[in-house]
Amino acid sequence: MITMEAFGGRRLHIAVVLAVVAVLWSVNTRSPPDSIVRTNADYDPCCAYPCDNQGVCLSYPDRSYVCDCTNTGFSGINCTSADFLTWVHHSLKPDPEKLHNLLTSDWWLWDVVNNVPFLSDMAMKYIFISRGDQVDSPVRFESDHSYTTLDAYFNETYFGRTLPPVPDHCPTPMGVAGPKQLPDVDELIKRVFLRRKFIPDPHDTNLLFQYYAQHFTHQFFRTNYTKGPQFTKGLGGVDSSHVYGVTEHHRRAIRLNKDGKLKYQIIDGEHFPPYIKDTPGLDMELPPYVPVNADTTFALGHPFYAMLPGLFVYSVIWMREHNRVCEVLKDEHPDWDDERLYHTAKLIITGEVIKITIEDYVQHLSQYKVRLRFKPDVIHGSRFQFHNRINVEFDHLYHWHPLVPDGIKVNESYYTVMDMAFSVKPVFVHGLDNFIRAMASNRAGKLSARNHGKATVPFLRKMLLNSRTIRFRGINEYRKRFGLKTFTDFMDLTGDEELARDLQDLYGDIEAVEFYVGLLTERDSPSLTPLAMVNIGGPWSVKGLIANPICSPHWWKPSTFGGDRGFEIVQTASLQKLLCNNMKSGCEGISFKVPPGTA
Amino acid sequence: MITMEAFGGRRLHIAVVLAVVAVLWSVNTRSPPDSIVRTNADYDPCCAYPCDNQGVCLSYPDRSYVCDCTNTGFSGINCTSADFLTWVHHSLKPDPEKLHNLLTSDWWLWDVVNNVPFLSDMAMKYIFISRGDQVDSPVRFESDHSYTTLDAYFNETYFGRTLPPVPDHCPTPMGVAGPKQLPDVDELIKRVFLRRKFIPDPHDTNLLFQYYAQHFTHQFFRTNYTKGPQFTKGLGGVDSSHVYGVTEHHRRAIRLNKDGKLKYQIIDGEHFPPYIKDTPGLDMELPPYVPVNADTTFALGHPFYAMLPGLFVYSVIWMREHNRVCEVLKDEHPDWDDERLYHTAKLIITGEVIKITIEDYVQHLSQYKVRLRFKPDVIHGSRFQFHNRINVEFDHLYHWHPLVPDGIKVNESYYTVMDMAFSVKPVFVHGLDNFIRAMASNRAGKLSARNHGKATVPFLRKMLLNSRTIRFRGINEYRKRFGLKTFTDFMDLTGDEELARDLQDLYGDIEAVEFYVGLLTERDSPSLTPLAMVNIGGPWSVKGLIANPICSPHWWKPSTFGGDRGFEIVQTASLQKLLCNNMKSGCEGISFKVPPGTA
Repeated sequence: MITMEAFGGRRLHIAVVLAVVAVLWSVNTRSPPDSIVRTNADYDPCCAYPCDNQGVCLSYPDRSYVCDCTNTGFSGINCTSADFLTWVHHSLKPDPEKLHNLLTSDWWLWDVVNNVPFLSDMAMKYIFISRGDQVDSPVRFESDHSYTTLDAYFNETYFGRTLPPVPDHCPTPMGVAGPKQLPDVDELIKRVFLRRKFIPDPHDTNLLFQYYAQHFTHQFFRTNYTKGPQFTKGLGGVDSSHVYGVTEHHRRAIRLNKDGKLKYQIIDGEHFPPYIKDTPGLDMELPPYVPVNADTTFALGHPFYAMLPGLFVYSVIWMREHNRVCEVLKDEHPDWDDERLYHTAKLIITGEVIKITIEDYVQHLSQYKVRLRFKPDVIHGSRFQFHNRINVEFDHLYHWHPLVPDGIKVNESYYTVMDMAFSVKPVFVHGLDNFIRAMASNRAGKLSARNHGKATVPFLRKMLLNSRTIRFRGINEYRKRFGLKTFTDFMDLTGDEELARDLQDLYGDIEAVEFYVGLLTERDSPSLTPLAMVNIGGPWSVKGLIANPICSPHWWKPSTFGGDRGFEIVQTASLQKLLCNNMKSGCEGISFKVPPGTA
Repeated sequence: MITMEAFGGRRLHIAVVLAVVAVLWSVNTRSPPDSIVRTNADYDPCCAYPCDNQGVCLSYPDRSYVCDCTNTGFSGINCTSADFLTWVHHSLKPDPEKLHNLLTSDWWLWDVVNNVPFLSDMAMKYIFISRGDQVDSPVRFESDHSYTTLDAYFNETYFGRTLPPVPDHCPTPMGVAGPKQLPDVDELIKRVFLRRKFIPDPHDTNLLFQYYAQHFTHQFFRTNYTKGPQFTKGLGGVDSSHVYGVTEHHRRAIRLNKDGKLKYQIIDGEHFPPYIKDTPGLDMELPPYVPVNADTTFALGHPFYAMLPGLFVYSVIWMREHNRVCEVLKDEHPDWDDERLYHTAKLIITGEVIKITIEDYVQHLSQYKVRLRFKPDVIHGSRFQFHNRINVEFDHLYHWHPLVPDGIKVNESYYTVMDMAFSVKPVFVHGLDNFIRAMASNRAGKLSARNHGKATVPFLRKMLLNSRTIRFRGINEYRKRFGLKTFTDFMDLTGDEELARDLQDLYGDIEAVEFYVGLLTERDSPSLTPLAMVNIGGPWSVKGLIANPICSPHWWKPSTFGGDRGFEIVQTASLQKLLCNNMKSGCEGISFKVPPGTA
């Protein structure tokens, strides 16, 4: 029975809700009470990073400081007191580690979410927006200044920066913690990174995955070494320059100028990219030590990709896919000229790249049991910002050389990593399809400490030195920045006594552990990488994929992709289809995992 | 008395609301029913722009077409049927002309809005978001392709484009309407634009306003004539490059490298920028016909600004303001180095530029009686996109040479426009302060047809020719794009019989009237410009100002501007203060209007 009391109760209820809303409003809009904190430090107190929750530290010559907590959702002298709404939000938000374990476990709810479109959309919206919120957009920092500059935004030759550099005048390279001099890089590599014995990835990851990672990411990781490690030649995101080239000059050189297609040549009845001699004017921009022969070196969107067979394979596949898409478009639009076919195919390829990266690549990488979907429309109308800049820390994080094994078995031949450097010959010795099958059946290494092959040590060494040149903060500062708990000691970080001892020897203080070192030495997680790598790399990755212009409301429609058929190619793309459509002899069972039963 | 019926009625009410929500949901999420339309046209049917409400037209060789209505809020073969939510939204939205008349009238409600912060914030939020929604962000088009390309976004040397170019293969330059050949530019200029007799602006606008417009906008209107009228050398927005220079090289050349300041010299006891001889390495990038003398030409953020006294005056004032702000910052932060003082002062200057542009300049330009406020925090957390690109149509729209009078009276001297070209000597003959007072007391011209002075005709001519080269659509297409009713005939456009007759002679068809021609020949509105100029320029302008990175949540806080004092300089900036702080002899009564009683 419904009674008057019930109704009176409802009115009371409404009144309470209104009162709460009023309180929340006032809590949420009051200005943050900045207070000067005086210290006895004999250094700039901001070097100790006293401000939590992304509060910005400003210090004064008398060794006092202020935390600017504006728009952080926190207040108090060190931005540690959650405002009411922030408190509610944080109370509802699960602990990142628990959430990660849940997302990677076989929970019955994921079956429901994966099969009910409405719930799946909600899950993707949550993922896209919560990850996107963790990335400054517009970008605020670059590597030449430890404070916000207008240049960080307007000078796009800078890589962005998530945390500004440690100021030069701080007592130690990490701020105030740790030794005055960081450990010798070579000793660090020897004790922490170098592979003793190849450790395969426990998730059956194969080399098709490893090379996908490399091929995909080097469209936007393009350090400009002429200018310095803080600068990039890239354009800030998924621009498909790994297929087409990063300059208009380069793009023109590899176009066929007919039917929208890329140049190709036929070798043994199969389509391959042209040689450099057939692409006049192509500027390779490779370091002088890279051997280039115009008669036998292939001309690709990314010249470096002609130096490694795995990267070459993907370049061939994407070139074929582009030309295949051009044929579909020409069939649909026989009146379109070369220019329109080319540009529209490029939009479709960009869509395919994003779709495959999210649904095949990140799905495998994360080992999430929630099915990831490329559904940009779920965030239309939200606060998500459709613009991206690459952060230099993302480039460093993505140094995934431990994935690279010591060698690869193709049919009955065995090639070491160095056997395959600077030459794509093995692809032609065995044939493209056989080489792809070999990439699929060779195991990639585990992304962990002590699994870095000798051959790629120079890249690791250079990157570690660069991170010191541009003064990265330590791993714990990055963990705080991305809402993860900080490590309390070396065992807490590694879960491995020997490794913990080595790191203790090298750094002395957990707060001094460098960014990349902390990422790679963290204890295992259910994903291919340790937890921080997922939860720090994830936001940059999601932002880079979903902030692409094609995902925005005015672009995400059939006409952008030449009509329904083009749009459907994007929306149904998969690694499987990409290979099936572009391998001569079939693609059965090829995925990012070695076939069942592989040793 | 509350009865059970009332409660039952409430349940019914809730049920009805739920049902309506469900219907809306289904209406809003169904995919748009694209239908192929067959035509008998002997041309590409998309040349007739059949798709309304920003639907995208795709045609097929059999002369059929499809309108892609995705994400427009409309459906139907030509995207003319409003979805339910769109219909509700449109029903609530006032007609733009009526709204404009209301905004510019002395209505009692504006007094309330102006004086109640909560309502004022709501008004500004509405203005920022509704204007921002009208600009594609990310930008979709450039001038070399009549369809969406990835390059429009990633190649930032392109100006953006709001409506794509008329395809080359269309029957007439405007699509299907009008003559095969557009009217001769010189005849057009003579009959429509050329000043018969100087018409002063009826809102008492002075030359301080005119030069502000020019000085402010040329930080982002920087056509790259070496590459073509579709390319820019600018960085996409309010980057303060008009004060500091657009390249790092340029910026370095005019820095003092001490206390964050810009270089200066003292002339007659006042601070002025240095001469070119004192800025080694400065690249002027001026056309060869511009006379530059290293010993007497001033070195400014924008070299061209040393050629006209009005632009020079603003350059001097902003240089002084920058150096003044550096002193305030140094007083607050005596430990900061030159670099940090410079970059932080630049952030403050950028904030001042935006504040003064919105609250003084746009306020006067629009003649709105609602007080415009620079409150970026009102849109934090909304769908507003904090990234901007300059559209080439905005550059064309801003050709406001009718503001320029035939000459200017300074004290007892009279200078024609040509007397003052390429020389800033008059500033020194009379003194800076006197020259500023002269700018304030000379009337600017009315922004209308038949008020374009002879001296600046070459700029108009070049711009009109450029708009044909890059194939602008006609004014009515732009009016549709921005939600304005289209003109039905020439009298409807001009409200002036003679002008209507001339335009009829020249174009024959109202649909063939060019963009800029239509903007300038429209009948008067209560603003300084006709209605379309406000309602088309407004969105680009608001977007450019509010999408600046400093307005975004992570930037808009005291620490970005060096602390509370810096933030306060931004938040209290005004034209009045800018002048008072940087003129030697006081600034009383100087505004964007001539003093009361001026003839």
